[in-house]
Amino acid sequence: MAPAATLSGSTEPASAPVPTKQLAAAGIAANTVEQNEAVLREIRCLAADLVQQFNGGHPGTAMGAASIGMALWGSVMRFNPADGTWADRDRFVLSAGHACLLQYIYLHLTGYKAWTMDMLKRYHSTDFETSLAAGHPEIDPENGIEVTTGPLGQGIANAVGLAMGSKHMAAHYNKPGLEIVANTVWCFTGDGCIAEGVGVEALSLAGHLGLDNLVLVYDCNKITVDGNIDSYASEDHPAKLKSMGWNVLQVENGSTDVVAIVNALEQAKNLRNGKPTCVQITTIIGYGSKKQDTNPVHGAALGDEDVKHVKRTFGYAEEQKFHLSKQAYDTFASAKTKGDQLQARWNATFAEYTKAFPELARQFQQRNTHGDCDELVGGLPKEWTQMLPAKSELPSGAMPTRKASGIVVQALAPRFPQFMVGSADLLDSTFVSWKDMVEFQSPNKPQLGGSFAGRQIRYGIREHAMAAIANGLAGYSSHGFVPVISTFFMFFLYAAPAIRMSALQKLRLIGIATHDSIGIGEDGPTHQPVGLASFFRAVPNVQFMRPADAEEVMGAWTLALKANKTPSILSLSRHALPLLPGSDREAVRRGGYIVHTAEAGADATPLTLVATGSEVSVAIEAANILASGELQQSYTVKVVSMPCMTLFDAQPAEYRHSVIPPTQLSVAVEAWASLPWPRYTAASLSMHTFGHSGPQQQLFEMFGFHPTNIAAKIHQHAQSLTRDGTLVLPRIGEFAELLLGYAKGH
Amino acid sequence: MAPAATLSGSTEPASAPVPTKQLAAAGIAANTVEQNEAVLREIRCLAADLVQQFNGGHPGTAMGAASIGMALWGSVMRFNPADGTWADRDRFVLSAGHACLLQYIYLHLTGYKAWTMDMLKRYHSTDFETSLAAGHPEIDPENGIEVTTGPLGQGIANAVGLAMGSKHMAAHYNKPGLEIVANTVWCFTGDGCIAEGVGVEALSLAGHLGLDNLVLVYDCNKITVDGNIDSYASEDHPAKLKSMGWNVLQVENGSTDVVAIVNALEQAKNLRNGKPTCVQITTIIGYGSKKQDTNPVHGAALGDEDVKHVKRTFGYAEEQKFHLSKQAYDTFASAKTKGDQLQARWNATFAEYTKAFPELARQFQQRNTHGDCDELVGGLPKEWTQMLPAKSELPSGAMPTRKASGIVVQALAPRFPQFMVGSADLLDSTFVSWKDMVEFQSPNKPQLGGSFAGRQIRYGIREHAMAAIANGLAGYSSHGFVPVISTFFMFFLYAAPAIRMSALQKLRLIGIATHDSIGIGEDGPTHQPVGLASFFRAVPNVQFMRPADAEEVMGAWTLALKANKTPSILSLSRHALPLLPGSDREAVRRGGYIVHTAEAGADATPLTLVATGSEVSVAIEAANILASGELQQSYTVKVVSMPCMTLFDAQPAEYRHSVIPPTQLSVAVEAWASLPWPRYTAASLSMHTFGHSGPQQQLFEMFGFHPTNIAAKIHQHAQSLTRDGTLVLPRIGEFAELLLGYAKGH
Repeated sequence: MAPAATLSGSTEPASAPVPTKQLAAAGIAANTVEQNEAVLREIRCLAADLVQQFNGGHPGTAMGAASIGMALWGSVMRFNPADGTWADRDRFVLSAGHACLLQYIYLHLTGYKAWTMDMLKRYHSTDFETSLAAGHPEIDPENGIEVTTGPLGQGIANAVGLAMGSKHMAAHYNKPGLEIVANTVWCFTGDGCIAEGVGVEALSLAGHLGLDNLVLVYDCNKITVDGNIDSYASEDHPAKLKSMGWNVLQVENGSTDVVAIVNALEQAKNLRNGKPTCVQITTIIGYGSKKQDTNPVHGAALGDEDVKHVKRTFGYAEEQKFHLSKQAYDTFASAKTKGDQLQARWNATFAEYTKAFPELARQFQQRNTHGDCDELVGGLPKEWTQMLPAKSELPSGAMPTRKASGIVVQALAPRFPQFMVGSADLLDSTFVSWKDMVEFQSPNKPQLGGSFAGRQIRYGIREHAMAAIANGLAGYSSHGFVPVISTFFMFFLYAAPAIRMSALQKLRLIGIATHDSIGIGEDGPTHQPVGLASFFRAVPNVQFMRPADAEEVMGAWTLALKANKTPSILSLSRHALPLLPGSDREAVRRGGYIVHTAEAGADATPLTLVATGSEVSVAIEAANILASGELQQSYTVKVVSMPCMTLFDAQPAEYRHSVIPPTQLSVAVEAWASLPWPRYTAASLSMHTFGHSGPQQQLFEMFGFHPTNIAAKIHQHAQSLTRDGTLVLPRIGEFAELLLGYAKGH
Repeated sequence: MAPAATLSGSTEPASAPVPTKQLAAAGIAANTVEQNEAVLREIRCLAADLVQQFNGGHPGTAMGAASIGMALWGSVMRFNPADGTWADRDRFVLSAGHACLLQYIYLHLTGYKAWTMDMLKRYHSTDFETSLAAGHPEIDPENGIEVTTGPLGQGIANAVGLAMGSKHMAAHYNKPGLEIVANTVWCFTGDGCIAEGVGVEALSLAGHLGLDNLVLVYDCNKITVDGNIDSYASEDHPAKLKSMGWNVLQVENGSTDVVAIVNALEQAKNLRNGKPTCVQITTIIGYGSKKQDTNPVHGAALGDEDVKHVKRTFGYAEEQKFHLSKQAYDTFASAKTKGDQLQARWNATFAEYTKAFPELARQFQQRNTHGDCDELVGGLPKEWTQMLPAKSELPSGAMPTRKASGIVVQALAPRFPQFMVGSADLLDSTFVSWKDMVEFQSPNKPQLGGSFAGRQIRYGIREHAMAAIANGLAGYSSHGFVPVISTFFMFFLYAAPAIRMSALQKLRLIGIATHDSIGIGEDGPTHQPVGLASFFRAVPNVQFMRPADAEEVMGAWTLALKANKTPSILSLSRHALPLLPGSDREAVRRGGYIVHTAEAGADATPLTLVATGSEVSVAIEAANILASGELQQSYTVKVVSMPCMTLFDAQPAEYRHSVIPPTQLSVAVEAWASLPWPRYTAASLSMHTFGHSGPQQQLFEMFGFHPTNIAAKIHQHAQSLTRDGTLVLPRIGEFAELLLGYAKGH
């Protein structure tokens, strides 16, 4: 058996007695090993009770890794229960989110005010409406929870984002002797979590960046829902982590040997050798249960009989429920004093700092404000919108909206330290780099020319981790960072699980999603995002915007930055789009507006065309044909640009109906799936296949998105609705698809 | 510098002369090193020309890794250009899909009929409508392309699926001395591809399974779109792969040293030591270009000047375009003869096999049929639908639809060898295991009790790779496998990029997506799939089905199996749903049908409620309340179950309007986002937030999905539409949201 905790490659033992220096003579350090074990026994019994009460939840890890929790909250972590949002607290991420009970119990024991025993008892309770004790931890820094976790693997990436945030803050604000940022990020992960691709992507980037303020606490019990991981994984995890630039420490007997865990975690925290560290701790899931070390204890109540067995095993009365002794509370009572002391010491340092660097101190404080911020866009001076070029200053020629977005990046990113702007290997294609940018890179890699003070992030070809890391940055503090991520729109599908988590957590994150139409050249159907927008339009609290020209891009960016509690995706074209005479950045906030009117004579049929992004200019051309009289019938056509459906939906009916009158025929033009359109229009020209590989203009023609064809199809449709010279409007349920897909049938 | 090719841990050199045994005295083995280099030069010039002609495409890898292509198609791979779908061919997957030009050129040189020079010239051409030469390879086994690739990382997983397919076929059909399955799967990957999480997940599973018929050909040029990978990756790839159970061989000077590549690939193919093998080959991207070894050569034409430079460098006339010499063709002429010989030898073996094992031979042949198959469900006897229990035989009590799906798995999976059924660590929760199932596991791990003949796959917690691997299985041959994958519906979002690729490639794959409603207990909002269905409903060629009870589950499974060219997702409940008196498996194929009518008096207002899945039974209860006269007004209510929107959309208008008459008020009831509903109904009761953590029934109440509330809200809505005693139907554009979300505001 390996020594209890050895640094990979060294033979230095780490299971020495608890180092009193770190622990002082209080809490778990003041206890004997037996006293700590007694407290752990109570915690395991409590976990069994809490899951049993409503016959649901995850007891296994709370019982098996109670020891790890004791080491973290009882000794190594730096936090203040009285001030959950203290700027320089350590960050803790429970990537194995189903193990939340473990975290809740320690938040209770260490004295976070909201975490009363009554609150703990609401874990999986029927009295749940106002509960903090959800089945997965839900973001609430004030009460000790940094990010919402549950979807496996993402928490690791969130922790990498938090560690990047700390590294950046330290590089940007710390001064010699005045280290106002010196925290550690702890990520608790399990066997399932660490198997997910997004987790591995994040581990890989953390290794590259050399985030030595990050400790991965790997609870290795080898049991997941379906049983032992040996049946589907045969990895040498320490070797894998080392290959990605990590230190690895190992602890055996992790369910009981708190001293070894404390030592290993302390060692991990203090290594700071330019590498992140994983502490792999072998535990026994459901420790104390009859079913310990098997999968049934992972995610189901133990059953009354087994709960009794646990109590008997640990020497407690079978009928005593939800019990924590005075000794248990005493053991963690020092958390508050320690927290107060740590924060007081920090306050003193910060006072000195403020004296020496008042402007930086002000900025630092602003960026670490919790909750709502006075200023509209956390940290940005109010006049920032004036830094964007006015419409008259925009290039008058056609330009891709991705390039227009680049104008905003150039205007704002250099000036405002909140911006952390990156790409999954498409910095140039997505126009998110700027002049004189400095890359966010480890100072230990001078050949790369970056620094931790840099704000241009190279995420590598890791889209899912990119978004989940950005969530960590966005969650670092309410106004600390404005993370911007970028890739082709199609590959936001890889990132989608994390974008959904941004929305759920109310985090501001800006996604630059380029190459958004079928018109992307030879990349072909694999890169053409025909159905993807429907997802982002359906997920609550996502601001999905598809601007039609450079002017609308200005509006979309402004909204994205102002949306403090909402992720935004800017869906942008690869190909050049004309600056529309009628476009208006201010109107973007209403979601949809009339961008063009093609007037015809008095006997003309009124018609509304609704389009988005690269299809708006095409729709305008079609409108002009429809109004021209070239066809048998003339139409007076309003063209509506609808950059954001959810913003439009939020407008009063009066406005919406003035833009798209239900009394007139309306048709949508968007080279994506038609799914969302029947809410607004009676028909649409949409995509029904995946696209094709070929030049943009020809693809638009091939699939019918050519002005002449659009006009013809709409005219034909209007004719088909005409009875005795009167156009009879379709009713709900009679939506018409005016294009039926390309014969080759991709 | 490392020796040209050494097996990790050994010192055995691999850069010996080309072994004539394997190569015979033909093709590249008959050539001198100089002759082969001359051919490579032509190929690099051709690649430069083909990308230059229309100023778009990816020249870099085609030029830098031409040598790898020469080794693969010129020597080590086993294929027959005259019969692309020969059952025991080697499989080649170009995971780095943008490098397709490389593959196209060798398909041309080796004599695949369709791959004429004229076809090659259509690469990124304006004359593209009938072209095979798309910007990423598109599935077409007959013409040498096994799967469509492009979205990075997935190709690795596809190759793992193909290798699993071969291992399984071999274990199931081979007999001593009659090895009718002995092929190798080759996966060409690059630096970008191998960084993606989905790729790593698949590599990890391949290592666990010990797929020693799989060779990863890693073209390591260290350049991706944004530049050198050193700026975002610092991995020791060989060590990482070894930690996951792989052999690793390395080749230096890979752009020119064809002999070393051939040797390494041969060695990889013949190792068969219970591990998959990666051959890491160092190449120079854009070899020969002025910009070689830099990112501009990755994905853009070189420019006329540089193309001339390439020609000069390689000693060709600047003005000679699209040139391949007789020597080039002669070098690959043996591919055809070799292919014919190999297949003839195999045919002889198969003839013997057929004599000895006629029934197995028949089955094998059927499973290797290319294209359409006589039998409805490739390989399943026609009477298979009769093996499912009739409605009268289904349990009369309420049961979760996930459990009803388990009845189908139990009925069919044991009997039909095509089924390869797996889960991402949720075998039991998703009811996809069956009695006496044997796990698909390496015979080298007897402790796991499985075998390669097993058909129960433990994918581990790797949802994205699971779906992409299943695509490999589905693509193995048109009727070889029916892959079934499973996880919670929410985590189909992790798998979504691969499901989209199933649809694009027209592959049958069945996704069992359980825990599909907000009613999933303590798992809470992170696990509640509020917006996800909109994605799968929007993507072309996905059959997304949400059955309302066990009877509809029978129908949905039947349709999923019959859909030879379409992936299906069965969205299933965690909680028990009653068997509905009006449910009808046959009706599922029409997408929506009337499942219940609640009659009221003659003065009743006619009303249609449309619901899906777990909300159908709730809607029926609401309908009964609306019909009862309990409210001020009575309604005659038809309840429509709509298990599949796309199937409903495909019905004639007459049918659709008979089910949901546009002349009556209609309301949808579905506890998901409302996005798709305005196509069918005038209003909906939908989710506008992410959900909450709590017991199922209380969540349904909390969010308004309770019969009493539904009835009240609908009545209230009908009242609001009533003018002078007449209900005025809303028009298009007047869709109403009848529930507005929970105040806590998740």
